[in-house]
Amino acid sequence: MKTNPGRFFEDYRLGETIVHAVPRTLSGGERALYHALYPARHAVYSSDEFARSCGLAASPLDDLIAFHTVFGKTVPDISLNAVANLGYAEGRWLAPVWSGDTLRSESTVIGLKENSNGKSGVVYVRTRGLNQRGEVVLDYVRWVMVRKKRLDVAAPEAVVPKLAPALAPEALVVPEGLDFSRYDFTLAGEPHRWGDYAVGEMIDHVDGVTVEEAEHMLATRLWQNTAKVHFDATQREDGKRLIYGGHVISLARALSFNGLANAQMIIALNGGAHANPCFAGDTVRAWSEVLDKAETAAPGVGAIRLRLVAVKQGAAPFALKGEDGKYLPEVLLDLDYWALMPR
Amino acid sequence: MKTNPGRFFEDYRLGETIVHAVPRTLSGGERALYHALYPARHAVYSSDEFARSCGLAASPLDDLIAFHTVFGKTVPDISLNAVANLGYAEGRWLAPVWSGDTLRSESTVIGLKENSNGKSGVVYVRTRGLNQRGEVVLDYVRWVMVRKKRLDVAAPEAVVPKLAPALAPEALVVPEGLDFSRYDFTLAGEPHRWGDYAVGEMIDHVDGVTVEEAEHMLATRLWQNTAKVHFDATQREDGKRLIYGGHVISLARALSFNGLANAQMIIALNGGAHANPCFAGDTVRAWSEVLDKAETAAPGVGAIRLRLVAVKQGAAPFALKGEDGKYLPEVLLDLDYWALMPR
Amino acid sequence: MKTNPGRFFEDYRLGETIVHAVPRTLSGGERALYHALYPARHAVYSSDEFARSCGLAASPLDDLIAFHTVFGKTVPDISLNAVANLGYAEGRWLAPVWSGDTLRSESTVIGLKENSNGKSGVVYVRTRGLNQRGEVVLDYVRWVMVRKKRLDVAAPEAVVPKLAPALAPEALVVPEGLDFSRYDFTLAGEPHRWGDYAVGEMIDHVDGVTVEEAEHMLATRLWQNTAKVHFDATQREDGKRLIYGGHVISLARALSFNGLANAQMIIALNGGAHANPCFAGDTVRAWSEVLDKAETAAPGVGAIRLRLVAVKQGAAPFALKGEDGKYLPEVLLDLDYWALMPR
Repeated sequence: MKTNPGRFFEDYRLGETIVHAVPRTLSGGERALYHALYPARHAVYSSDEFARSCGLAASPLDDLIAFHTVFGKTVPDISLNAVANLGYAEGRWLAPVWSGDTLRSESTVIGLKENSNGKSGVVYVRTRGLNQRGEVVLDYVRWVMVRKKRLDVAAPEAVVPKLAPALAPEALVVPEGLDFSRYDFTLAGEPHRWGDYAVGEMIDHVDGVTVEEAEHMLATRLWQNTAKVHFDATQREDGKRLIYGGHVISLARALSFNGLANAQMIIALNGGAHANPCFAGDTVRAWSEVLDKAETAAPGVGAIRLRLVAVKQGAAPFALKGEDGKYLPEVLLDLDYWALMPR
Repeated sequence: MKTNPGRFFEDYRLGETIVHAVPRTLSGGERALYHALYPARHAVYSSDEFARSCGLAASPLDDLIAFHTVFGKTVPDISLNAVANLGYAEGRWLAPVWSGDTLRSESTVIGLKENSNGKSGVVYVRTRGLNQRGEVVLDYVRWVMVRKKRLDVAAPEAVVPKLAPALAPEALVVPEGLDFSRYDFTLAGEPHRWGDYAVGEMIDHVDGVTVEEAEHMLATRLWQNTAKVHFDATQREDGKRLIYGGHVISLARALSFNGLANAQMIIALNGGAHANPCFAGDTVRAWSEVLDKAETAAPGVGAIRLRLVAVKQGAAPFALKGEDGKYLPEVLLDLDYWALMPR
Repeated sequence: MKTNPGRFFEDYRLGETIVHAVPRTLSGGERALYHALYPARHAVYSSDEFARSCGLAASPLDDLIAFHTVFGKTVPDISLNAVANLGYAEGRWLAPVWSGDTLRSESTVIGLKENSNGKSGVVYVRTRGLNQRGEVVLDYVRWVMVRKKRLDVAAPEAVVPKLAPALAPEALVVPEGLDFSRYDFTLAGEPHRWGDYAVGEMIDHVDGVTVEEAEHMLATRLWQNTAKVHFDATQREDGKRLIYGGHVISLARALSFNGLANAQMIIALNGGAHANPCFAGDTVRAWSEVLDKAETAAPGVGAIRLRLVAVKQGAAPFALKGEDGKYLPEVLLDLDYWALMPR
């Protein structure tokens, strides 16, 4: 059997590190495709000139290009037999990714807990994305529910890692050289600075995008994500292709430009839930809530912690969960992240 | 309210200059996408080697990539609340755009005329696209009908700019160094030179393309055009997404290769009307009429003025307007431009 | 008549060489699009770092990018009036294609045979793809059935070239410098080396992709392939757009990663049949059969000859032909090629 059946729950060992396959060199091609697939307009990622005026050598590749590329490589080893993608924590962007960089990924198993039914279990991994110099550019924890294949294999000792509910401001890593003290608000597209946002503020990002099959498949392939349900209409009984959760993340983040144009760079992922599946034909909208704010040591740079919620048609304004505490059926994504803004 | 509601008619002041947001660095990625989205084959924009044989340093980015990029930036400030895109005039490509260039846009309000119903008005802007050295690469006039929000605001004094019906040949700017004296007609794809075209000649470009939703949205996003009607199927009562008029321009121009393969570079836009809306599922064809010809001072380079008409299924050959003087329902686009050809 | 009607059978002369139009400069943009359109993951074509560890200067553009680009240029001269694409033979990749290279194509007519009905004939061409230094990067024979237009033109003397059923191992050209002696199987994605594959072995590549209209049109346009049936839904009575056979080749080759991740580079095309048409909505799967193996002089590099079969929904495992010797209706492609693998 030469093909990859994927790993099952009993195949993971606490502490082992899995080196994921197929490193990837990124270029202006991936950047152009990203901007064709999502209405991305944050100026640092759109213009070399703007990025230089902010102290960077050039425009880096979008923060989520780095995320998707690193994530995609983990799929064949981590989530090919996953029943559910349960959560993210402690994600940090540690260095910008530039056109020409080559990324690879590795994951360490930091937790294992078999479910009481004996048929599946939760695997916790800390994934690192590395560039061609071996520098870690991204680091995050993800946990997924994975099926067991050999039900007779004894459950491992349950180990659940203690994860921070959110990255502390002191833990955030601002890109080297970033300087927002000569920030051009006109070219960036909005006048609102860090000081203009209040904790608790809610922002409806207004715009919507109706999603097509070709788009999410182009995106998901570009990240070399191989999960069958995204591509093969014969995998589900309803004949639908499940849209990669990361596609919804990128859509919602791009839509959040309208109201958060100056939340330029994502630097931490505190948590996230793919609340409901998204399918082609859905019209995706987004809203944000300001969760926290913090200063940074970089000139003119503030950090803002945001909840980013993606919803589909039929959603009520700012509605998130029902009285039962569960996500409403129109909610697609509930993401918690830190971004950098001019102060 | 942190999101952009767009400007309404009463928000424009005669003479004011609006600096548009989000400069954009273009690369080989945008070029590849352009050639995947449109059947573009003009050799100067396809091959570095061919462009060098014509005196250029390399293959520039397609003339319409420059146009769409500059245009897209104006949408949030000019046409977010536009009822209709009424016309173009006096458009000139003043310098080629190269891979690696960063474009930004600004528009000066050169005319304002409130409609007699008091509910909307026409805004005339002269838009300039600039590269990272501040050089103007593109300059054109556009006028749109924009809604009023505060109906009680008094109408401004009506000012309608006097616009040339077409650029005079003397006003055309040939790219520096362009030299068609060693032009390779075989590699360019057709033997017909400037002298082979007669004023009044009509050319049916034969080929057709059936348009898909994913394609026009990829294109329109790539130019960071944010108009809701192109992306959000819930915006119109009929559930259709209106295709960006510029998508039809690029489709028709690319189709015109078959018969006008040597009309290599667009250098002026004399006028244009988006006669009827285009929707996914339409099969777009094109025909051209030679309107004028002129010599230029560049070696071997002639100018040809063309009417480019895009039509959809059901159109009769070369039919444009009905007896009532109105565009026939199958006509999508009526464009008037100058291009450069080998003499 | 300025448009290209295409050539008919009576327009070809034995021995003539046709220089095809529109050279094309390729960049990281084409590479990114290729990886968005197909689930391509072979490491040599994904990572500059991996390619360097294999003795190459950088990651070349995918072997099939070279093929499609060279092939696309031949369409306006060879297959615009083709009734059927009958076969390929003696195809060899002679040098890698790099980002920045400019490709052009030319074809020599090596055989002509009018059909007994007098209404069409078979044209055999040997096509060469050349880079900007005039080096041949790809060379293959293709034969197509082309309609006659002037039925009264006398049939030419029938000449059918003698073509090798498969390239002999001695004829294969390994890219200069290729060295698999320090090959990283972990990063490549699978542990199976050349020695692990046996002649006669069959591999089911498991994964499937449901194809969309937008995808195959983006791909086919990117290669500047102008055949009307791929783009224009009004060309066929059933309103379907026929998918370019090369799209199926690339899909199947990319799917074959799962089981043949180390069959890194295609270096010869022995033959191929587009057994049945593919349409949007079809779910494409693939299987391979090991046909032959050979050593090469390059360090650590073995050659493997593979049959790659693409099928659509409803196909039985490894089924190819019926009792009548004809391809089963679910078979889309039967391709015979040589690839390079680490020994």
